[in-house]
Amino acid sequence: MEELMGLREGSPGKPEALRELWGRCPHIRRGVRRALEWLKQRLFRVGEDWYFLMALGVLMALISYAMNFVVARVVRAHNWLYQEIGDSQLLRYLSWTVYPVALVSFSSGFSQSITPFSGGSGIPELKTILSGVVLEDYLDIKNFGAKVVGLSCTLASGSTIFLGKVNKSKQNEMLAAGAAVGVATVFAAPFSGVLFSIEVMSSHFSVWDYWRGFFAATCGAFVFRLLSVFSSEEETITVLFKTSFPVEVPFDLPEIFFFVALGGICGIMGCAYLFCQRTFLGFVKTNRFTAKLLATSKPLYSALAALVLASITYPPGVGRFFASRLSMGQHLDALLDNNSWALATRSSSPPWPGELDPKNLWLDWYQPEFTVFGTLAFFLLMRFWMLILATTVPIPAGYFLPIFIYGAAIGRLLGEALSVAFPEGIVAGGVINPIMPGSYALAGAAAFSGAVTHTISTALLAFELTGQIVHGLPVLMCVLAANAITQSCQPSFYDGTIIVKNLPYLPWIRGRCLGSHPVNVGHFMKSPITTLAKDAPLEEVVEVVTSTDVAEFPLVESAESQILVGTVCRAQLVQSLLAGPSSWARGQQRQLQDILAGGCPTTPVTLQLAPDTTLHQAHNLFELLNLQSLFVTSRGRAVGFVSWVELKRAISSLTNPAAPK
Amino acid sequence: MEELMGLREGSPGKPEALRELWGRCPHIRRGVRRALEWLKQRLFRVGEDWYFLMALGVLMALISYAMNFVVARVVRAHNWLYQEIGDSQLLRYLSWTVYPVALVSFSSGFSQSITPFSGGSGIPELKTILSGVVLEDYLDIKNFGAKVVGLSCTLASGSTIFLGKVNKSKQNEMLAAGAAVGVATVFAAPFSGVLFSIEVMSSHFSVWDYWRGFFAATCGAFVFRLLSVFSSEEETITVLFKTSFPVEVPFDLPEIFFFVALGGICGIMGCAYLFCQRTFLGFVKTNRFTAKLLATSKPLYSALAALVLASITYPPGVGRFFASRLSMGQHLDALLDNNSWALATRSSSPPWPGELDPKNLWLDWYQPEFTVFGTLAFFLLMRFWMLILATTVPIPAGYFLPIFIYGAAIGRLLGEALSVAFPEGIVAGGVINPIMPGSYALAGAAAFSGAVTHTISTALLAFELTGQIVHGLPVLMCVLAANAITQSCQPSFYDGTIIVKNLPYLPWIRGRCLGSHPVNVGHFMKSPITTLAKDAPLEEVVEVVTSTDVAEFPLVESAESQILVGTVCRAQLVQSLLAGPSSWARGQQRQLQDILAGGCPTTPVTLQLAPDTTLHQAHNLFELLNLQSLFVTSRGRAVGFVSWVELKRAISSLTNPAAPK
Repeated sequence: MEELMGLREGSPGKPEALRELWGRCPHIRRGVRRALEWLKQRLFRVGEDWYFLMALGVLMALISYAMNFVVARVVRAHNWLYQEIGDSQLLRYLSWTVYPVALVSFSSGFSQSITPFSGGSGIPELKTILSGVVLEDYLDIKNFGAKVVGLSCTLASGSTIFLGKVNKSKQNEMLAAGAAVGVATVFAAPFSGVLFSIEVMSSHFSVWDYWRGFFAATCGAFVFRLLSVFSSEEETITVLFKTSFPVEVPFDLPEIFFFVALGGICGIMGCAYLFCQRTFLGFVKTNRFTAKLLATSKPLYSALAALVLASITYPPGVGRFFASRLSMGQHLDALLDNNSWALATRSSSPPWPGELDPKNLWLDWYQPEFTVFGTLAFFLLMRFWMLILATTVPIPAGYFLPIFIYGAAIGRLLGEALSVAFPEGIVAGGVINPIMPGSYALAGAAAFSGAVTHTISTALLAFELTGQIVHGLPVLMCVLAANAITQSCQPSFYDGTIIVKNLPYLPWIRGRCLGSHPVNVGHFMKSPITTLAKDAPLEEVVEVVTSTDVAEFPLVESAESQILVGTVCRAQLVQSLLAGPSSWARGQQRQLQDILAGGCPTTPVTLQLAPDTTLHQAHNLFELLNLQSLFVTSRGRAVGFVSWVELKRAISSLTNPAAPK
Repeated sequence: MEELMGLREGSPGKPEALRELWGRCPHIRRGVRRALEWLKQRLFRVGEDWYFLMALGVLMALISYAMNFVVARVVRAHNWLYQEIGDSQLLRYLSWTVYPVALVSFSSGFSQSITPFSGGSGIPELKTILSGVVLEDYLDIKNFGAKVVGLSCTLASGSTIFLGKVNKSKQNEMLAAGAAVGVATVFAAPFSGVLFSIEVMSSHFSVWDYWRGFFAATCGAFVFRLLSVFSSEEETITVLFKTSFPVEVPFDLPEIFFFVALGGICGIMGCAYLFCQRTFLGFVKTNRFTAKLLATSKPLYSALAALVLASITYPPGVGRFFASRLSMGQHLDALLDNNSWALATRSSSPPWPGELDPKNLWLDWYQPEFTVFGTLAFFLLMRFWMLILATTVPIPAGYFLPIFIYGAAIGRLLGEALSVAFPEGIVAGGVINPIMPGSYALAGAAAFSGAVTHTISTALLAFELTGQIVHGLPVLMCVLAANAITQSCQPSFYDGTIIVKNLPYLPWIRGRCLGSHPVNVGHFMKSPITTLAKDAPLEEVVEVVTSTDVAEFPLVESAESQILVGTVCRAQLVQSLLAGPSSWARGQQRQLQDILAGGCPTTPVTLQLAPDTTLHQAHNLFELLNLQSLFVTSRGRAVGFVSWVELKRAISSLTNPAAPK
């Protein structure tokens, strides 16, 4: 107590002494100040935005974690209700179905009532925006809120609806990084997060963006995993789905052949899935009954779809034949199991467990009268159309994880078949190595999801999720084989949605289209165009402005020379015209240049195309510089106009010469 | 035997029967033919070149494997010689030193005698070429041959010279893919091979190239590993340096802090290394003695340097204090060891082994009088200047692996120190986990090599090399920290070489330079320029052609209007002028347009800049479209000229405003 008193008494003197000491060393003082200045200058330079990127990553991780937390609680409540409700089949059925139906219809209604765009995964819209097209209101905090709440409801409806989450950020300025952060936080996989978002989003990207993406993704993944350590779910930061494949001989050389074959199967399945999905989406949009339902009452459509899906997955009913009680994570945990289920159930046949056994999740995949193969095949059959039906429901949802699991089931089926065909393993080099169906499930998951999204980085995602990269080459070969098939036959999942949703979008030119068809800008530009000459009388200007509705007019030197000097914005021109009616009324013959001199701003031409510019060059320009439109000049004269509409038409007539011009 | 006879007798009849059978089914025949046609059309479309990429990957793998094979034999012969030569110290010393000296001087002399470019890793040159600059003769089969032979000699000189290989291909058309294949085949790591080559080579790239890179890299890595299985070196295709970190709790949460600190240390060491390396390279080039030696007798310089390096690494001498007997692969194997050497040698102190024990390679790192810390620190000290000296030797060599190992040693030193400081492991969450110095070695290797080359994908390389990705987040954070420090202080290893070698090269613009300095093409273009008017008299044209030496002249409509209409190539113009002297001599006043009409080809303008184009736009154009130069037009008039020389000057005056314009 006395010490405290002494401290208090001494306290006015202390800073004085400190100040004195401080004042005595001007060198050190100046040095410290300069060092701090230097540090500040280093860290917060103009144009550097690492702190924004970090905040973005951390924020995304917090939101993602909070969503996970809420969803886990809601799912647990549902399971508890289902277990405790008694033996009445009707009550159990109702508790199983009503819950997701309510959540899905709420999610649909809530997110639609806030903004009409928030359905789906949002990746097609982001892709469109990144390619330079402006979608108004899409990058909105309201939309983000709607997404978060809607997504939580979707996830809470659990394995019945079987839709996952692909979170993503909506920072207009750092969109590319945001998309990477989304994937990275959801899967805690920074590498594949960055690569996946690059592959899905754009066709060109800069290494600078890629570094930014890595930084933000690492922050996000770190915080996301950190939270699960702090909440005592995990001992330390580690991978989501641990596998324990042997390091010494993970697979045998002849197995490479089966991995490539699996890639081929996944590619064909991917084509079939994409084709059916696009067709069904189109059917729902054109069919009179569903189109009307979707237009007038989206929640009702969602509720109906949810009811169908929930009824089929009802575990005591059909659901027990395709392991519908497992959640998404449990599905993956079970499918990546090392051991062969078929061999394990060959001698003994365990009964179907009444309740889930967390240690032996795979038992849910075994039906004595159906065998493992039966359940896996039935899963593939049922989930195929259920996934397609689920994607038509207008709720915010991620489609990646369900597709990943579907692929894992394909791989597992092949793996189990191989383990039965070669029960002793494939003998090569005198050593016997049993076949691990889990490795096929991993490869199948990567290959099918890669094929459907037209990406290769799913292979890396598979490794980051499991913590082992020993199957590096076979999985990569499997993914490449699947991609080769699907990319040459079908547009990707996201491109397909863009096509069905009729979003503005620039398709990309494959290498093969270039050499064979030399197409120049002169062939496809919009021509002739309406120009405004500087020496045009005001009457003519007013007529041009009122008769057309383009947003930007090309400004030419004179009506005769047509030499392009700049552009003038429609809105500003109209404003200037309206501002100066008094002088205009005086009868004096005024020209456009008087208006311009009077303060209407013009934009100088920075880039221009020539009629001899190739389609490839024009495409690169538009895509890399995020352009909306460019004027075409020939010897200085404005002769045409190219926007992404003309480019798109030119590219689609390249890839499909029969298409209407 | 009779069956055989029967077969022979029947053989003339068989094809007939077959043909008959064949002829009977026109449907099937047509179907098969159509299917084959379809397959051919699918696989060998115009512009698709997957078979070239595949051939490239396979070829690279074969060459790389053949090199490995030869090198291994030569190294084994050297080791045998060294072991068998008896106890005479002089003889042993001579056998240790003469061998690498001879190989290095041969490598230097041989490759220099064929082409002067083949020294070094070749990555700086490739980077220059990819940025659009033409280096003549660099992409030459002669140069490639020189590289392969020279590289083999360098590698054969083994751990004394301590240089690795970064193989790469020289296919002009598929350069980007080739570089990826090189890295992928050397390390059997397709993912990081592709990413590393992208990061090192370019600042923009297309997803299409990235897919091609993956395909070629996978083929290369697969064949490379396949060969080692066929030659019975390995059981199956697996990773190069297997680690066995525990999957459950690979590291503890507080260790993240040490990983980031390790990143900081590696970043600072990277800065120091890059600075010293560039300074020394400059010194060798300017110092009178060494410059003369390098100009007149490169093999002598190489031999001298090799003698110095070999003498210091002589194992019974100084070499034993920094484990100089280990090869590059053995170094990595030892440094990535799970267990703590410091703890293992604390109670017992094993003697320094007279011969290498392949099972306990790490014993070479332990000197009883020096401890493990002493050898590691001494290794870092000695290898620092030895590496710098080795990089000045003009032989084909890869610098990546030595840098990777150096980083592993930094990490190992920190890891050993931590394992002594916390011998019981870091206690967190009630569970005790021993610290694994091997994980720090892995992180250090990735961070230091990433810092020196300014790349992040080295983290991925570390995982692909070891087959485990459980340290994903800490290693990535370590690499990011190291990169943040080095990228803000020093140019990368390859950029530094480009600077010292004075190669033409376009520096890239950081995000931060853009907003603060709005620079337009008008500010830095070359102006005025010499134009050729279509109505210019021939005398004037001849004068212009003889007085200037540009390769391309801008062609304008008339001397008065200066409207740009195209370009004409100097060589072709001269040829046309020389071809038509008879008509020219007739005294009639001829103009340039007569020459042009007479058959001199002109190139239309496809892209043009405006004085208002921003530096950023111009930079992107040049880089993405691989341009050499562009003309600047204002209202159609040719007013200036921009090539990478002007761009480079503009960018360097941006980043360093004091630089001379």
